[in-house]
Amino acid sequence: MTLFWDCLMALLAAFGLICIAWPPLLWEKLDRYRREKHKRNEERPMELNEALEKLDALQKKSYAYEAGLSALYLDGDTVAPPDTEEGRALAVSVLAGEWHEKFTAPETGALLDYLTEHREELDRVRRRQVEELKRDYDKDRRIPADEYMEFERLTSEANAVWKRAKAGNDFGLFLPYLEKIVAINRKFAGYYDPGKAPYDALLDEYERGTSMAFYDPFFAALRERIVPLIRAVGEKEQPDDSFLHRHYPAEAQRRFSDYLMEVMGLDRAHCTIGETEHPFTLSFNNRDARITTHYYEDDLASSMYSVIHEGGHAKYDMGVADDLQYTRLAGGVSMGLHESQSRFYENLIGRSLPFIEAIFPKMRELFPEQLAGVTPEQFWRAVNKAQPSLIRTEADELTYPLHIMVRYEIEKRLIDGALEARDVPGEWDRLYREYLGVDVPDDAHGCLQDSHWAGGSMGYFPTYALGSAYGAQMLKNMEAEIDVWSPVGRGDLSQVTAWLREKVHRFGGLLEPADVVKNACGQFDPAVYADYLTKKYSELYHL
Amino acid sequence: MTLFWDCLMALLAAFGLICIAWPPLLWEKLDRYRREKHKRNEERPMELNEALEKLDALQKKSYAYEAGLSALYLDGDTVAPPDTEEGRALAVSVLAGEWHEKFTAPETGALLDYLTEHREELDRVRRRQVEELKRDYDKDRRIPADEYMEFERLTSEANAVWKRAKAGNDFGLFLPYLEKIVAINRKFAGYYDPGKAPYDALLDEYERGTSMAFYDPFFAALRERIVPLIRAVGEKEQPDDSFLHRHYPAEAQRRFSDYLMEVMGLDRAHCTIGETEHPFTLSFNNRDARITTHYYEDDLASSMYSVIHEGGHAKYDMGVADDLQYTRLAGGVSMGLHESQSRFYENLIGRSLPFIEAIFPKMRELFPEQLAGVTPEQFWRAVNKAQPSLIRTEADELTYPLHIMVRYEIEKRLIDGALEARDVPGEWDRLYREYLGVDVPDDAHGCLQDSHWAGGSMGYFPTYALGSAYGAQMLKNMEAEIDVWSPVGRGDLSQVTAWLREKVHRFGGLLEPADVVKNACGQFDPAVYADYLTKKYSELYHL
Repeated sequence: MTLFWDCLMALLAAFGLICIAWPPLLWEKLDRYRREKHKRNEERPMELNEALEKLDALQKKSYAYEAGLSALYLDGDTVAPPDTEEGRALAVSVLAGEWHEKFTAPETGALLDYLTEHREELDRVRRRQVEELKRDYDKDRRIPADEYMEFERLTSEANAVWKRAKAGNDFGLFLPYLEKIVAINRKFAGYYDPGKAPYDALLDEYERGTSMAFYDPFFAALRERIVPLIRAVGEKEQPDDSFLHRHYPAEAQRRFSDYLMEVMGLDRAHCTIGETEHPFTLSFNNRDARITTHYYEDDLASSMYSVIHEGGHAKYDMGVADDLQYTRLAGGVSMGLHESQSRFYENLIGRSLPFIEAIFPKMRELFPEQLAGVTPEQFWRAVNKAQPSLIRTEADELTYPLHIMVRYEIEKRLIDGALEARDVPGEWDRLYREYLGVDVPDDAHGCLQDSHWAGGSMGYFPTYALGSAYGAQMLKNMEAEIDVWSPVGRGDLSQVTAWLREKVHRFGGLLEPADVVKNACGQFDPAVYADYLTKKYSELYHL
Repeated sequence: MTLFWDCLMALLAAFGLICIAWPPLLWEKLDRYRREKHKRNEERPMELNEALEKLDALQKKSYAYEAGLSALYLDGDTVAPPDTEEGRALAVSVLAGEWHEKFTAPETGALLDYLTEHREELDRVRRRQVEELKRDYDKDRRIPADEYMEFERLTSEANAVWKRAKAGNDFGLFLPYLEKIVAINRKFAGYYDPGKAPYDALLDEYERGTSMAFYDPFFAALRERIVPLIRAVGEKEQPDDSFLHRHYPAEAQRRFSDYLMEVMGLDRAHCTIGETEHPFTLSFNNRDARITTHYYEDDLASSMYSVIHEGGHAKYDMGVADDLQYTRLAGGVSMGLHESQSRFYENLIGRSLPFIEAIFPKMRELFPEQLAGVTPEQFWRAVNKAQPSLIRTEADELTYPLHIMVRYEIEKRLIDGALEARDVPGEWDRLYREYLGVDVPDDAHGCLQDSHWAGGSMGYFPTYALGSAYGAQMLKNMEAEIDVWSPVGRGDLSQVTAWLREKVHRFGGLLEPADVVKNACGQFDPAVYADYLTKKYSELYHL
């Protein structure tokens, strides 16, 4: 600098007048010039084609990180040796952090801002991608990278600990994790939407547009109709379902799963089935889905309906249009709609008499002794036996929403601080008595039964009930448009799937959840769901 | 700018003398000032503690990307639905590219330069980490990111295609991939070391310090001793090994694998076994290893020795010191040393009479009918039957190096361009006739038998023979130091493992391969290997 200053000062001194006032002004001017020159060289105006290429690359990167994390998760939950969480938790936390850092970098913001400005020039798919990514970006920017990594690390560990806690009926083991998961959810709710009550922000995360103000009356309306129905059913004679609990060897059940996947049209070249404690679906893309189940040798229906349920999730993911793959719009659009599909196949189709009649010959072939003398109608009555019980995933279709209401109530109060994590077991037991009239014998059959909280999800459960309500409306519309039951009665689900693909699956995330609901259900109306349950159980129990 | 220039020009004009010469000089000065100011603000001098933290973070990131890629690879090779390569190849290619970009960024170089300058202040572990990372960095900087991604994408696809090609005995299907893999290896060899012949650069990549000048005389010396030995063995009566090919149900073989892993001290809480076409070992860290095997119901020895072989790899990875985990120094130090461990357990221990005597009671229990009337000594002779054959992985210990020599010759000529990929089947058949005297019936039993080329590896095979030579020297030293065979004869491998851990495993990448070899073998001498084979087969065949 000396030379410049020397010369400049000499010049200024020579001119005499402006030696004091000028230097700062000069600097500022020079600085602005440098910035602009840099901008011209390095940040020359983005062009649309270039921006679209960057958009595609960004989404492929998102896919790649997600796939890596999914593969680690899948491995951890299926084939990994038991005592290996440490390394996996490290990998998951770092990789998630890497993606978070990359996605929330200012370049991403600049790209999305540019594309938002040029939204009129984009086609429908690209426009929607930009909208959704921008929304994600704005939200994720609010979450500090270290907290995001902490969340990933915590839930990876918590999932492993939860498994041990459930196996050993040891809530104390899981408690510190539950406490941390509540705290981090509360904190994240503030990042999602600081203007909302924390639980509202979480509900909206899982199903855009929902809130306590939405769910409270939905559940109240449902309870008003279902509780008397359950009471009426309870006064009737229960069907015999003892044959469901004969000895069903896992190996024969595996062959049954293969058959069910075939009936559902799940192409085994693109969809496998594995075995885990808690069944789940994980889809990498529309040509690579994985479902899992759990075989109980004294319970045929458990795995049977897990396979159909998870198969329904897979059908949705695999039905999304090809041109949305490896983008933000691949996969299902919301949890509620995802559950509407899984539960549609599981309950509305899978627990219908025509479906059971269609698959019964194969069942008799696989389980000749266990099903000796059992008719399809008896089987249908058995798998629809409605009775308050302990385990959500094995609850019948009628009492199921009450299991959800218990979790909704507990989450609501955990998040607003009215309930401490350590008091969950007591509150769980109390609500099961109040809502379902059953006594919870231990936490393994109580508040430790589900993996959701261990996975970090709070606000997810209500979408299950919502999905069932959506499904009832879809069935009503489907019945009005096509002949549903004749093909199903022949074991042909292709028309049902085609309808759902047309109205729901193919859109992926291209439409807002509410628009998909409108498309497939019309105006949301919980009464349709209550009507459906009333009709079904009146028929089953001769009410 | 206008104001500044106007004023400056006015000043300059007023002074008259320097109006032409000065502006560029001024700009250069200003530019340097800006850069230095920026450096002071943003790149203040690094401090050692901060640099060490960055070093740890860098290595944890490396671990995380590697773990994500490994999980994708593992999934693809074990449980993924068959027709799902596309999405996985995309994910692998992008993730690998992401890491490559991150690792080869100038910041990494600056960090490693800084730590290299301060190497005297680092402890032994950190110093070695920096050395190895710097070497990786310099090499990787030479590989353009797009070519690196292309390599990852190509090998991910090639692996899937190779499986189909092998299953369908269709070399033509694999040929275009082999061509590309040769071309990319040749190109990469130039990046590894442009001063070397390409195949030398590749050999050095898999075993630092080796070259054609090293392997040519090694193989020549070996051939000189082994070929007459094989001829002598060929003139003797062959042992009966028909009982190895009775019906061994996969389920019973699975239980046998469990037993073998127990004998090897492979803790199932940290090591699983899976089933794949081609057995392999994949270790995430020293507490998370996976081995795989392949069961043939008409061949007991195949899976048995795959399990022991892969178990040997796992023992090495799991024996590396805790303080090297999640760093550049975790895992085995070189391919040759890795193979020395797998082959040590497989051949030197697993095919020894004391070992077979120790495990025979359990084998009789698992396979009572198949092994009725068979003595441990007969079994020992059967699994050591030396006879030229087609499949490398099932070759006996004596003829095995000749299988390697075929591959070495072919790779050498593929890489230097003397051989075209399309001529590989013919050349393979010719060399098998020349070296082993066997006729290759088809490519599935010929040049399509191994996965290595599909995985992108050329220059890897020779390390197998090298590993066997190392192993023979290790056994000689082990026998001089401890009582090897009494505990092995009781099925107790703990002393053998302890010796290998002390001399080889625990160091991981802390020492140079050559120093580990010196530590465990002394001076490298292929004659010890030839002596070992001569002694063993003279005893087996009463030469």
